[in-house]
Amino acid sequence: MKNEYEALTLESLPLKLGKVSAITDQIGLETDKWKVKEVGDGNLNLVFIVEGMRGALVIKQALPYVRVVGDSWPLTLDRAFFEYNALIRQDQRDKGIAPAVYYFDRDQAIIAMEYLNDHKILRGMLIDGRVVDGLANTIGNHCARLAFKGSDLYMETKEKKEDVSLFQKNFELMGITENLVFTDPYFDAKMNNHSEGLDPTIKMLRDDIIMKSRVQDMLRNFTCNAETMCHGDLHSGSIMCTESETRVIDPEFAFYGPMGFDLGMNIANYLMAYFSQPAHRKNRSESIEYQGWILGVIQDTVYAFNQEFNNLWKTERNGILYPKCLFEDQGHSSDHALASLLEHIWKDAVSVCGIEMHRRCLSLAHNADFELIEDISLRANLEARNLLMGRELILNSNLLNSVGEVCSMAKKFNEKVI
Amino acid sequence: MKNEYEALTLESLPLKLGKVSAITDQIGLETDKWKVKEVGDGNLNLVFIVEGMRGALVIKQALPYVRVVGDSWPLTLDRAFFEYNALIRQDQRDKGIAPAVYYFDRDQAIIAMEYLNDHKILRGMLIDGRVVDGLANTIGNHCARLAFKGSDLYMETKEKKEDVSLFQKNFELMGITENLVFTDPYFDAKMNNHSEGLDPTIKMLRDDIIMKSRVQDMLRNFTCNAETMCHGDLHSGSIMCTESETRVIDPEFAFYGPMGFDLGMNIANYLMAYFSQPAHRKNRSESIEYQGWILGVIQDTVYAFNQEFNNLWKTERNGILYPKCLFEDQGHSSDHALASLLEHIWKDAVSVCGIEMHRRCLSLAHNADFELIEDISLRANLEARNLLMGRELILNSNLLNSVGEVCSMAKKFNEKVI
Repeated sequence: MKNEYEALTLESLPLKLGKVSAITDQIGLETDKWKVKEVGDGNLNLVFIVEGMRGALVIKQALPYVRVVGDSWPLTLDRAFFEYNALIRQDQRDKGIAPAVYYFDRDQAIIAMEYLNDHKILRGMLIDGRVVDGLANTIGNHCARLAFKGSDLYMETKEKKEDVSLFQKNFELMGITENLVFTDPYFDAKMNNHSEGLDPTIKMLRDDIIMKSRVQDMLRNFTCNAETMCHGDLHSGSIMCTESETRVIDPEFAFYGPMGFDLGMNIANYLMAYFSQPAHRKNRSESIEYQGWILGVIQDTVYAFNQEFNNLWKTERNGILYPKCLFEDQGHSSDHALASLLEHIWKDAVSVCGIEMHRRCLSLAHNADFELIEDISLRANLEARNLLMGRELILNSNLLNSVGEVCSMAKKFNEKVI
Repeated sequence: MKNEYEALTLESLPLKLGKVSAITDQIGLETDKWKVKEVGDGNLNLVFIVEGMRGALVIKQALPYVRVVGDSWPLTLDRAFFEYNALIRQDQRDKGIAPAVYYFDRDQAIIAMEYLNDHKILRGMLIDGRVVDGLANTIGNHCARLAFKGSDLYMETKEKKEDVSLFQKNFELMGITENLVFTDPYFDAKMNNHSEGLDPTIKMLRDDIIMKSRVQDMLRNFTCNAETMCHGDLHSGSIMCTESETRVIDPEFAFYGPMGFDLGMNIANYLMAYFSQPAHRKNRSESIEYQGWILGVIQDTVYAFNQEFNNLWKTERNGILYPKCLFEDQGHSSDHALASLLEHIWKDAVSVCGIEMHRRCLSLAHNADFELIEDISLRANLEARNLLMGRELILNSNLLNSVGEVCSMAKKFNEKVI
């Protein structure tokens, strides 16, 4: 009974956690001096910032339901367990990008982790038109390192399969993605909502049988193809930055899936920031300038991904896949195999990108880039550009060979009169 | 201690199993009348036929090593656990094709199952030139039902992921396939052996960087892409037939993998039977006639697979993939989605087929179709036809749209002067 789950409150938190040395080591023993704030603005959890005499940390606690919807939508507390496991692996695979973890209590679904005091959520920074140095590099590298080091290119096959086996149990959170991202946008699902004025565009998407079929091919890929551990929710709300440092948070949707998944979702959220700019900037030239910066981030992210993946391929390829005994050890180049694998990853990324661009305007969880636009008609027009480009990406993922083509396409849709 | 593993012997078997009612119910209590034979001619296990007053059954027991190699190659006893689990699922998904299971003891790695008295191993029948009515239909349907009913087209997503999680633990047997099938043929692996005279052909295969890269793409697919539960070893030695009935045995290599895997391995073994015929028939016309029958089996197997998959798609598609809410419920056809999925399955099957054709002549476990050919030079020539066709299949799986094209290709290679 002692360990029965109870949601923390501002009052109960110091009482319950004040005896945990992993926590008091970080912020000090003087619980009466602790300042506790609840700052959870996400969709799912309680998030507290706790400041003590020696420092501050974040306490994240899962609720037994989806916060944004309420207790009518129960959700496993074990998502904290998967978030904890993902944070550990992120740190192993790319040191210092995820918040450091100080303490985990599975029964209470609590993780105590590093407080990123100076960092802001990237989505807000993109809405505000702020520039982050090194963003593309950090995220491109992080995606490449997660993709490579969680795969059979790198892991021992036994360890990989044990990890896949473990993360298959995160089926409730995978289920949210399966529904909200891959299916709900394309029919009249109960929790959907969309901006007034989008009906003709939505009808066009839902009437496109070939596109829907490709989206479902990607759902098959999402749910079956356990290539690597993905962050699973790498939108701009899961990235925190200063002007020169980038960190990645909130991997509770982590799952073993396609190596291109995180990259695709990340690019999609940059593209939505891109399309929404005309509503957030003072004038056209400011908008064009900042949009140029965003497209540069997209290009550089993919460039960094490819560079780092290439680097790991050359130096750390010790798993069962594409082994050196079949290539280098026979005096043969493995460049073709690498190029073909990167092409496969890229095609998946492009498809995921298009699908993410759809779901953020059509199903439950919208993004602030568009939602903060008060002019409904402008909002619908910008969302329509985004939706139509999403369709092109899904339909043509086999033909778009480079990130440059994706950026050119964005420029074309950015001019589109709806 | 009572349950500590001990390999059965002809003498100990009645003492140990004579008290198991699930067994005595089948064959009678009079253990002194039991006739016990050890008939295991496979690569891995002990197999006993036990005849009692009331009937007969098979006792299959895993050994803690690979039988064909010896105790220098230890292998998990838990393969019996996965075989048991696979047998149960095969029977749920396609009733009456796998042997009925009477009893399972995990600690002793023992499965008691139906004795197929009248049935012979299909591989021997193909070598002997015997015809089996309904073979194509039974195997085509079985592959389609396993593929469909073990996938997210049919299963509840939670149940599917739990099953994937379970079968990921069969990593030791997956590991054998990963090495012996996908990797060993393409380098000078320790346990490889091949017929004298094949060196130039082998050099050509190992020098083909593009082909090796595609093989490894398929290894990625094998090891990551948990689309459905596959039998995992559906060659002609895992099929037992009378002249008119077909059964499938030995699913210890069962794993969650590509929906086209079983179909591809099955076709490969028919093609090897096909290429080996000139050595087994009395004259050319007999050989041509029986080869024609084999190609007919291949065509009809794929036809039955497609028909049954199509049928299940129309009537049993209740999982998360390609749901009716996106197609039929909107008045839209799902035919395009089905066609595109079948194309995906077929391409995987063609690639797996080519790879299986390679490994059976190049790595550890060869097949009797070629191995029984005493004329070494003839054997090497027939194997070379088979190896070269395998290469074509791997390289052109994207272009071969129908089973007819594969059969035409077989005829072409069957005439090839090496």
